[in-house]
Amino acid sequence: MTDAVLTHLKNDRDNIIGRLKELVRAPSVSTDSAYAEGMKEARKILNSRLKLSGFENISELEAGGHPAVYAEWLGAPGAPTFIVYGHYDVQPPDPLDKWHSPPFEPDIRENRLYGRGVSDDKGPSSIALETLSAFLAVEGRLPVNVRILLEGEEETGSVTLRALLEKYSDTLAADAVLSADGARWRADLASVNVGSRGNSRCELALRTAGKDLHSGRFGGAVRNALHEMSALLASLHHSDGRVAVAGYYDDVEELDAGERQRIAAIPFDEPGFFEAIKGTSHGEPGYSTLERLWVRPTLEINGMWGGYIGEGSKTVTPCEAFAKLTTRLVPGQDPAKVGSALAAHLRAHCPTGVELSIALDRGGSAAYMVPKAHPLLIAAEMAIESALGAVPVRVRVGGSLPLSYIVKDTLGLDTIMLSFSTADEDFHAPNEFFRLSAIDDGVAAWVRLLRILGEQTPGLYTPFKTISKPEGIKSHDRA
Amino acid sequence: MTDAVLTHLKNDRDNIIGRLKELVRAPSVSTDSAYAEGMKEARKILNSRLKLSGFENISELEAGGHPAVYAEWLGAPGAPTFIVYGHYDVQPPDPLDKWHSPPFEPDIRENRLYGRGVSDDKGPSSIALETLSAFLAVEGRLPVNVRILLEGEEETGSVTLRALLEKYSDTLAADAVLSADGARWRADLASVNVGSRGNSRCELALRTAGKDLHSGRFGGAVRNALHEMSALLASLHHSDGRVAVAGYYDDVEELDAGERQRIAAIPFDEPGFFEAIKGTSHGEPGYSTLERLWVRPTLEINGMWGGYIGEGSKTVTPCEAFAKLTTRLVPGQDPAKVGSALAAHLRAHCPTGVELSIALDRGGSAAYMVPKAHPLLIAAEMAIESALGAVPVRVRVGGSLPLSYIVKDTLGLDTIMLSFSTADEDFHAPNEFFRLSAIDDGVAAWVRLLRILGEQTPGLYTPFKTISKPEGIKSHDRA
Repeated sequence: MTDAVLTHLKNDRDNIIGRLKELVRAPSVSTDSAYAEGMKEARKILNSRLKLSGFENISELEAGGHPAVYAEWLGAPGAPTFIVYGHYDVQPPDPLDKWHSPPFEPDIRENRLYGRGVSDDKGPSSIALETLSAFLAVEGRLPVNVRILLEGEEETGSVTLRALLEKYSDTLAADAVLSADGARWRADLASVNVGSRGNSRCELALRTAGKDLHSGRFGGAVRNALHEMSALLASLHHSDGRVAVAGYYDDVEELDAGERQRIAAIPFDEPGFFEAIKGTSHGEPGYSTLERLWVRPTLEINGMWGGYIGEGSKTVTPCEAFAKLTTRLVPGQDPAKVGSALAAHLRAHCPTGVELSIALDRGGSAAYMVPKAHPLLIAAEMAIESALGAVPVRVRVGGSLPLSYIVKDTLGLDTIMLSFSTADEDFHAPNEFFRLSAIDDGVAAWVRLLRILGEQTPGLYTPFKTISKPEGIKSHDRA
Repeated sequence: MTDAVLTHLKNDRDNIIGRLKELVRAPSVSTDSAYAEGMKEARKILNSRLKLSGFENISELEAGGHPAVYAEWLGAPGAPTFIVYGHYDVQPPDPLDKWHSPPFEPDIRENRLYGRGVSDDKGPSSIALETLSAFLAVEGRLPVNVRILLEGEEETGSVTLRALLEKYSDTLAADAVLSADGARWRADLASVNVGSRGNSRCELALRTAGKDLHSGRFGGAVRNALHEMSALLASLHHSDGRVAVAGYYDDVEELDAGERQRIAAIPFDEPGFFEAIKGTSHGEPGYSTLERLWVRPTLEINGMWGGYIGEGSKTVTPCEAFAKLTTRLVPGQDPAKVGSALAAHLRAHCPTGVELSIALDRGGSAAYMVPKAHPLLIAAEMAIESALGAVPVRVRVGGSLPLSYIVKDTLGLDTIMLSFSTADEDFHAPNEFFRLSAIDDGVAAWVRLLRILGEQTPGLYTPFKTISKPEGIKSHDRA
């Protein structure tokens, strides 16, 4: 069974790569104002291509930060409407001397395209845009209604995304979000992400005296801030890896036996996983490594410091100590409630004579889960199976994906990530690359998915479109 | 009862201050080679003064570092011989902008002489040298034999002092050491130091993985180096302040009831002590604050760090953590044995999967105690009482005084500190000053002490002159 659109895309492969290279040449680094021209150039390229492809209402949406590129095609009355999301900004190229070819001069070596942003997210975004263009070129229409949203601030923490979605909520009316961002868990496994952990953060500062004291003149008779901080931080976990904060696991949704079986069935090279990082397995007893990463919450010390940390030694009894903590949260957990439990634990474990400051970040995001029977999820699984010839497994992301959470929180829409970059492609590092084979897999999956979605009845999505936050949760997005 | 030497010193007060000022003008900073000329200049001044006063064999002793100034007067056959110790080097003057008058331009304000090194140790050394000169000027002789040793490396940790004492052990043959260095515990209490704590140090490095890991992709399933370090450091103490290392207190010499009573009888404003540092009392149960400072050992974390310690937050699962530790040791404790106990504790508390490196410093010094019936101690107490009109209390120093320890270890001699600087005189800080009243108290006490010593029979010292280290101790000096 040949698909005319897919055939068109296959024949156009060299041009697709050529256009991707042109986009990569625009140095659209969002975090550094020295690249403002590169940002402008990338928007200009996208604008003109969207116009050429037949999209309408091409414009720039903006809420105080870098504008997002918007375009729409709404010529499929009765069919559902999707926001197709991607981002045109890229990470800074530093350190420049580590690149084997210049970051903004795309170079193909061994079927990989090298350049800043090729994998995150210009390659995956291009797959989506090229597929949509091919439909319009070959068939003069898309199977569904589409609103394209290409963000310009993803690499700087999507700081104005929430404001932007709220400001343009009418423009962005849709049934669900198809994201071309994110990354496949592994290159050797067909998978679809169904959830990500949330997060929150906290900073601790502790004081035991007015100034650092000489350990000879005071040591042994006064509190040492580092002793106190060590004891406080050590109190956060049991030695077996469980979080020791009272109430920490209270609201965690436990998996049912079926879900646990599905996770256990996922092919996973556990020894290889630990070998690659030269680390050893350690975590909450009673859960597998994948469960610990995907469905169990964490409380991690990301940094701690105090006293003399220079060369040699200094006989000081330090008066201050500091620590930075973050959590990863799972479905059921409210970032604010978790923060309160943590603060209560710390205060209860802080002895008199120790002044403890707890800065709980106002932000923090709850975990995100695609509803199990969401029509876009079902369609994505069918498309991947049909295009790649393998039933995708449902995986989760241990990290936090602000987009899904913010979109759900502001527009009430669920998101499916259909990215064809892979976690090993050195995005955010020198020599970022994108497998050219991802273009073939990607366009095949996107063509199939759009056809499947075109056959769905629009009413299917209505029950899922809710801004549903667990009761009592006042949540905020974060960088 | 008038003492002709003391009268001479009183009449010569302005000149004494003038000569001290001249010495302070020589910027003898030992740690910075930019001040090499200042070091030379100070030595030149001392040399010519010692010659003028009538000392003999004036020379520079040197064992690889800055030379010490040596001079002797051995014209009292049958009387004991003392090394009179001081140092001519000073701390660097930085930060210069904090000084109210230039550090090397001595300035008198409100009966205090301001300048770098006035209190540590040019003022106290001058008191000793002026007293000796006055004896030679007025009486043509000293009551005892004297070998003057003015070190040039005290502020850089006396790194070659041990080698120097060993190299010149014949030149330095004596009965005991009278040090013009150190500081009075308080200006309002006549006291004599009879002991100081020893010390040792150790650095810890801990590794849990080959590199820092993303807390989303790995958090919850691998060890976090900061969790491990916190637990390890927290295991070192019980919550009541006791050191939790097995065997830590094994060899500590307990005080008898009489000694405890004497310490308890020392006037000590305990609330004021803690108020001044804005700290609270905390330490080993069953001991008073002064006992905790003087006769109980400590184990202190001086610095710890790991992970992300910059601005904002970084969701990292750190793979390394570090800590710096030092001890204060009391009589009976062997630095090497304490180090082994500490290492054994750390290894026993380090879980599998955590790579722990323990760098035990080869150095470390045992505590030092003047024998209770040492003739120089008895003489010093008599001199202080006679000169100041108050019976001095025997106090200890919570810190470590390498000189006493090294001299005992190499030459077998005990040391009494007779310094008239005071702990509050901002040595090692901007605006170092020296109370001019200390000159009056100082010369009075030194004159009395030399007269008392001149009446002692030399055989008195013989039983105390031993290089006595507790069995099994192989100790080293340290910076």
